[in-house]
Amino acid sequence: MLRTHTCGELRQEHAGQVVRLCGWVQRSRDMGGLTFVDLRDRYGITQLVFNMEGNAPLTLEARKLGREFVVAASGKVAERSNKNPKMPTGDVEILVDSFEILNESKIPPFTIEDNTDGGEELRMKYRYLDLRRNVNKKNLELRHRMAIETRNYMNDQGFIEIETPVLIKSTPEGARDFVVPSRMNAGQFYALPQSPQTFKQLLMVAGFDRYFQLVKCFRDEDLRADRQPEFTQIDCEMSFVTQEDILSTFENLAKHLFRKIKEVDTGDFHRMTYDRAMLEYGSDKPDIRFGMTITELNGVVKGKGFKVFDDAELVAGINASGCSEYSRKQLDELTDWVKRPQVGASGLVSIRFGADGTLKSSVDKFYTPEDLKIIAEKCTAQPGDLILIMAGKKEKTQTALGTLRLEMGKRLGLMDPAVFKPLWVTNFPLLEWDEETKRFYAKHHPFTSPVPEDIPLLDTDPGAVRANAYDLVINGVEIGGGSIRIHNRDLQKKMFSVLGFTDEQAQEQFGFLMNAFEYGAPPHGGIAFGFDRWCTIFGGGESIRDFMAFPKNNSGRDVMIDTPSSISEVQLKELNIKLVNP
Amino acid sequence: MLRTHTCGELRQEHAGQVVRLCGWVQRSRDMGGLTFVDLRDRYGITQLVFNMEGNAPLTLEARKLGREFVVAASGKVAERSNKNPKMPTGDVEILVDSFEILNESKIPPFTIEDNTDGGEELRMKYRYLDLRRNVNKKNLELRHRMAIETRNYMNDQGFIEIETPVLIKSTPEGARDFVVPSRMNAGQFYALPQSPQTFKQLLMVAGFDRYFQLVKCFRDEDLRADRQPEFTQIDCEMSFVTQEDILSTFENLAKHLFRKIKEVDTGDFHRMTYDRAMLEYGSDKPDIRFGMTITELNGVVKGKGFKVFDDAELVAGINASGCSEYSRKQLDELTDWVKRPQVGASGLVSIRFGADGTLKSSVDKFYTPEDLKIIAEKCTAQPGDLILIMAGKKEKTQTALGTLRLEMGKRLGLMDPAVFKPLWVTNFPLLEWDEETKRFYAKHHPFTSPVPEDIPLLDTDPGAVRANAYDLVINGVEIGGGSIRIHNRDLQKKMFSVLGFTDEQAQEQFGFLMNAFEYGAPPHGGIAFGFDRWCTIFGGGESIRDFMAFPKNNSGRDVMIDTPSSISEVQLKELNIKLVNP
Repeated sequence: MLRTHTCGELRQEHAGQVVRLCGWVQRSRDMGGLTFVDLRDRYGITQLVFNMEGNAPLTLEARKLGREFVVAASGKVAERSNKNPKMPTGDVEILVDSFEILNESKIPPFTIEDNTDGGEELRMKYRYLDLRRNVNKKNLELRHRMAIETRNYMNDQGFIEIETPVLIKSTPEGARDFVVPSRMNAGQFYALPQSPQTFKQLLMVAGFDRYFQLVKCFRDEDLRADRQPEFTQIDCEMSFVTQEDILSTFENLAKHLFRKIKEVDTGDFHRMTYDRAMLEYGSDKPDIRFGMTITELNGVVKGKGFKVFDDAELVAGINASGCSEYSRKQLDELTDWVKRPQVGASGLVSIRFGADGTLKSSVDKFYTPEDLKIIAEKCTAQPGDLILIMAGKKEKTQTALGTLRLEMGKRLGLMDPAVFKPLWVTNFPLLEWDEETKRFYAKHHPFTSPVPEDIPLLDTDPGAVRANAYDLVINGVEIGGGSIRIHNRDLQKKMFSVLGFTDEQAQEQFGFLMNAFEYGAPPHGGIAFGFDRWCTIFGGGESIRDFMAFPKNNSGRDVMIDTPSSISEVQLKELNIKLVNP
Repeated sequence: MLRTHTCGELRQEHAGQVVRLCGWVQRSRDMGGLTFVDLRDRYGITQLVFNMEGNAPLTLEARKLGREFVVAASGKVAERSNKNPKMPTGDVEILVDSFEILNESKIPPFTIEDNTDGGEELRMKYRYLDLRRNVNKKNLELRHRMAIETRNYMNDQGFIEIETPVLIKSTPEGARDFVVPSRMNAGQFYALPQSPQTFKQLLMVAGFDRYFQLVKCFRDEDLRADRQPEFTQIDCEMSFVTQEDILSTFENLAKHLFRKIKEVDTGDFHRMTYDRAMLEYGSDKPDIRFGMTITELNGVVKGKGFKVFDDAELVAGINASGCSEYSRKQLDELTDWVKRPQVGASGLVSIRFGADGTLKSSVDKFYTPEDLKIIAEKCTAQPGDLILIMAGKKEKTQTALGTLRLEMGKRLGLMDPAVFKPLWVTNFPLLEWDEETKRFYAKHHPFTSPVPEDIPLLDTDPGAVRANAYDLVINGVEIGGGSIRIHNRDLQKKMFSVLGFTDEQAQEQFGFLMNAFEYGAPPHGGIAFGFDRWCTIFGGGESIRDFMAFPKNNSGRDVMIDTPSSISEVQLKELNIKLVNP
């Protein structure tokens, strides 16, 4: 090695040793006859000292070192007179007696500091410099530790990691596939997997019983919010299990990661059905770090002449604790906020429960103080609270109230990032009706099994069928989901038919799976976790991008290497395709 | 769990316990009043017993169980009277008192046995059944253990695993890329990585100092021999290192895997320069489990009137120990063998060193017994040996002799599969001249650094420049290769120019890397191992396919899922491409 130690490991006990360090110049300072250079590597920063009195030529050379120069420096470790308790290496410095510039550096386009002056576009273009920043380094280190802990835990539980192929087959169901033209099979294409779903099920048919894989998956979607065209899953499947076995196995994985990575003991995870989550939290991924649950008010508000409420399918409210002193202006602003298309509410009714016990609402015309008192009781409001009520179609109102609940939780500081409240959501609906295409879609995917007692409903009322499916939610973020799968050919055929597939289409696209079910498929189920998201939650980050080494931007571009890009005519010709002008 | 135990764990000490097992019917036998069913899962086989006397209806039901039916069976563990010492569970059987058919099975298209009656095409179509065979299961288990041991070892050495992107940029240098049309960037394409080479170098520039990744790579090549369009590498890179640091770090990784997986202590690895490997073994990946090295004979055979030898650039031979009694027919067959285009020799001269000490050759006309004796001495031949000589252009003759050496080694049983002889080959040439395109190509890749003292030769004699590059060879198979990289922008530019790139081309394709070199790139180097191949060697297999869960065939097809396949007009339109009839 060109170094004897890293820039993070020298301590007082090394004083007197002759060492050689390699790293990048973080900063340098001239103080009278002394020049100090902070040398940085992956492990830390160590202070180099040059002394005009001791070695003037060397010190003059050192003064020429620019930021981000790569340097190898040799010298003796000395105890500092002026210790820096903020740095692990702050007790020592290196009295340099020789150094070598291993590479120079131009002035970086932004400062390599936690609080950098570089905007996102610039940092992405120079991602290799952005990654030198401590915050990004820590994120990738966290990701590495998460991966290695996950793998060792799964291995200890008897799971085997098996690599499934990346060049697979395009299927029209689900999100859009990325495709890869085949040169050897003219006019034909591979697709990149959105998940290894069918392969892991085939591995169960093959008898592998406990499979997992940390695996890249791909979706050609428009990249709103926090999506990336390629992302990583912890993909898992087990045979001979019930839903309970899966929940407990993966609750234990999650607890292990909480303990190892976050040093947190979460206790047993909460569980909630989908219906209750929608009813009380207006969301299928409730943040249960705080209450403020939704209260149905149909029974107590209807029939009092307030048409908005009388006509509504659902009237419901939340109780914002301690907010009775919200000003008119604040309430108007909140009303505007819920009317934005992202929330989509038609309005907001408020009832202040004054600290003096009086109740005042924006609909006093229709409700007596006695009526308001009943509403307040129903919402378990106390003096000093503010009740916020919405009305309209059931699901839309639930969702809007759920969104308002999160906003109030944020404003009231109820979402402590240091608190983790994992939650299993169960009993999802199997199917979702799509008004536009007038057909059912699978809420999870077409391989999810119905709750056995609901199977007859597939013929009579498909929308009411509950799935043997579950999600893991942490602090309002869905980090994983799965199901017990169908392992019976006839039921799988039935499912495809409910989804509008003809037998021929089902056979063409998923024939290999249905054939496999004829040769002794075991009962099986599994789960897949969004690894990028899980890392982001554990790292306390805002975006999954911050936990990927080389993410793409919102147009799916890597601005550093400048891709996607054009390819040559020769390549197009070999692939038997040509471009169409858009 | 639907089971209390696996089919591999019950022993005599469990006798008397009531258990429930799940698995597949391997076979069943009716013996008078008793019916035996072997139940198989991932962990082993356990014998189930049904007794007509004890429970006739149950036994009659059990007799209907077909091969590969999935069954859950409950009963008491009993010590067998007739123990089977060949099976870990052979001391016990289960006296079944109830069972349930979890799924039926059609008769499988081939037998699920180590020696199956299914041909490769059929087994690949039903790969999920093929994988039930013990041999394939063991291969994937070995692969998993290799991966987890590699990761933990690398982690212990301070390496961090970082995922690099799969959707990258197409570059014309090297093998053919698979490409992915971008929907959001019309007319543009991503490429799938042939290796994460430039990304891992950028991670070194970013300061990550010790990186590794088990990563899928892709090459759109014609699939001769043992190639697959997607394969897995153990990809590694380090900063602030010399070649010696890399060799010792990864020799230690390999030794660790030998110990953990093969329980073999190989001792320190041999090392050999490329020149010596070519000279003595006629190969850049010598199998050093046996000697039979090549001896140059120019000095002792020329000038005796034998034109073939006199005109040849190189005359050289190997000594096949104990083969003096080869018949005329055997020698003719060997001569035909070396004349095949795969070997490409023009002929073969043989000298028998009889057990009685006499020397007889096929060129006695030109060489006296005294001449033959000198040749034999030079080849260190003993009575009973057979010397085989070739002549012609230097490299071609070396390679042909190397191929003959391997063939003779195989015929003489010198390649013991239980013996492992790892070897580092060093000092490869940096460049290879291509007669067809009249230009130099990088022997490894364009980022490999020259041996420093050879840098001036880049201007005067590029073909003579040695690379700071190395391969790891085990038993004649190259399982890894790497180099110290160029980390200086000017040298990288020079390299591209030697390879025939204009400055503009170099900037367009690799500008991001050359720019990165301007911002403090550290000295760095690395290595990449072919993970599939390494598993194949350790597993004693013939083909890397046997160590992949779902490999493709020689036409790049997955015959199980039937891909590549056509995609819809809608998809093509969204991607702004259309098909051209080939």
